[in-house]
Amino acid sequence: MKDEFEFIDKITPKIKRQANLIVGIGDDAAIYSPTVLKNQVVCVDTMVEGIHFRKNTLTSYQIGRKALAINISDLAAMGATPKFFLVSIAISDKWNEQELEQIYAGMNDLADKYDMDLIGGDTVSSNESLVISVTAIGEVYSDTQLLRSHAQHGDVVFLTGEVGHSAAGLHVLNEKGINGPFTKDEQVWVLAHQEPEPQIKAGQILANLGERFALNDISDGLASEANELAEASQVSILLDESQIPLDSLKIAVDKTQALKWALFGGEDFQLIGSCSEQVFKKVQPLFQNENIHVTRIGTVQDGPVGVELTSDSKREKLEKRGYNHFFK
Amino acid sequence: MKDEFEFIDKITPKIKRQANLIVGIGDDAAIYSPTVLKNQVVCVDTMVEGIHFRKNTLTSYQIGRKALAINISDLAAMGATPKFFLVSIAISDKWNEQELEQIYAGMNDLADKYDMDLIGGDTVSSNESLVISVTAIGEVYSDTQLLRSHAQHGDVVFLTGEVGHSAAGLHVLNEKGINGPFTKDEQVWVLAHQEPEPQIKAGQILANLGERFALNDISDGLASEANELAEASQVSILLDESQIPLDSLKIAVDKTQALKWALFGGEDFQLIGSCSEQVFKKVQPLFQNENIHVTRIGTVQDGPVGVELTSDSKREKLEKRGYNHFFK
Repeated sequence: MKDEFEFIDKITPKIKRQANLIVGIGDDAAIYSPTVLKNQVVCVDTMVEGIHFRKNTLTSYQIGRKALAINISDLAAMGATPKFFLVSIAISDKWNEQELEQIYAGMNDLADKYDMDLIGGDTVSSNESLVISVTAIGEVYSDTQLLRSHAQHGDVVFLTGEVGHSAAGLHVLNEKGINGPFTKDEQVWVLAHQEPEPQIKAGQILANLGERFALNDISDGLASEANELAEASQVSILLDESQIPLDSLKIAVDKTQALKWALFGGEDFQLIGSCSEQVFKKVQPLFQNENIHVTRIGTVQDGPVGVELTSDSKREKLEKRGYNHFFK
Repeated sequence: MKDEFEFIDKITPKIKRQANLIVGIGDDAAIYSPTVLKNQVVCVDTMVEGIHFRKNTLTSYQIGRKALAINISDLAAMGATPKFFLVSIAISDKWNEQELEQIYAGMNDLADKYDMDLIGGDTVSSNESLVISVTAIGEVYSDTQLLRSHAQHGDVVFLTGEVGHSAAGLHVLNEKGINGPFTKDEQVWVLAHQEPEPQIKAGQILANLGERFALNDISDGLASEANELAEASQVSILLDESQIPLDSLKIAVDKTQALKWALFGGEDFQLIGSCSEQVFKKVQPLFQNENIHVTRIGTVQDGPVGVELTSDSKREKLEKRGYNHFFK
């Protein structure tokens, strides 16, 4: 493959999943008609080779899949329905045609699951690392706003799924390489790192309730994201260490290490949120019906803006430090 | 500056230019309400250090400005009104805080001109080159489609402004460096390369006419973009060499060189289009009123799909080759 045009032709979708897409790839820009009574939700996230992944932590297919999953997770945290995405990719000559096609195959499989159309992009050369940047577009009903700033005194703080698995998976990949061999526990963690599942269904259930929710996805670690909620809402959050769902991690590794991964690891793509006690009682059976695991991990309390972590023996301030990609 | 959060805080807009923006930077994704009876127009373009610019061809301010201008030019080619943009930037430690702020200052000044809001982004580290990827969002009335595929037999082929200046400017910058000294002509070309003006007004005038237009922006060179129109519309385009507006280029440099820059140089961000003779007569006075230069450079004719260039002495096929960023 020597030509940008040939490659674009190869990755241009042959089918249209969204009926309101008017012009997809092939013109200066894409055109779509927004759904009546819905607002548009847009986000962008970038993965850089050597920073966010290496060839020995993710396969090409997984790089593509994860680049889209990160963005779908942001849409989930807004309660949005995914619709479209655009992909900008800067490629060095260390990557061959088959690998590039696999990157797009990984994106396409996840896009298929969520009925998303690839509607635009840019393919350019890079001197060294592969850089992949995905823009995702979704829609929410115009009265829906699941914002970080919505936490209020007295709220239940809840978490979907388990946290720390992605960081544990990365640790194992760094130790053993991409081909393992892995124990059964390790396989779970490695898959959580390589092929995270965004919590779209959970976000939509909360959006459909039409109640006040604060919501955030766990991309930078539980500690960091809980602090984001606290700061945006100007509240104090108290997390109960014993309630943080470490499950398989707690048994397989040292508890301190498990807690460190859960609090500071990041890339779990679960949702942390808060709502009133009364609303939380409505959420639990709805999540149970869909097999979505949800845990009450804390409360919004009196006190200065920030996050505290409490256990049997101590109560301490939980700092924001976590997955900070920048300048490290 | 050591922290992603601090930097994001610094570049987060303190004002809102679009009234229908609901949630800007600061949550998992942005939310806006689309304008009634309008469609959404979305595009993304990426600039890579060492490929699309170097510190000795663009200042930091100009890098930011141009990264947004490229995208506004794509919106222009769809007849859209710019609304929002998102910026993903991968930064190596070769770039300091002041330079990064200048990149955002350049974007902000152009955004101010077009009333665009910065509504999201991602800031990550890169190992070596700076990579900046901008997603732009605009709106058009739902009956407007200025597509590449709309050229028809008998159409006038027209061009806004002049072409070749950006390539001439890059040539001069490569020869003399960013500080010159430049002749008066060279100053014009260098500025055309460093601070291109997207043709938003021209696109909107065409959109408001409600007529059939084929339209494309000249980002990859006149030859390449004329071929895009011909292929998308499945027509034959005949360009008249003597009509291509080379102006100051033709006088200052060898005519063959001037024509080469015009046809294959790229990054001029003018618009090439086609419409019926009758509609073109309506376009001319409207463009004149707004001081937009427009030239009839060819016709859509009988013949095989592609582009031909004619002059006094010859008539030859004009190949697509031009600015192909990929794998070169």
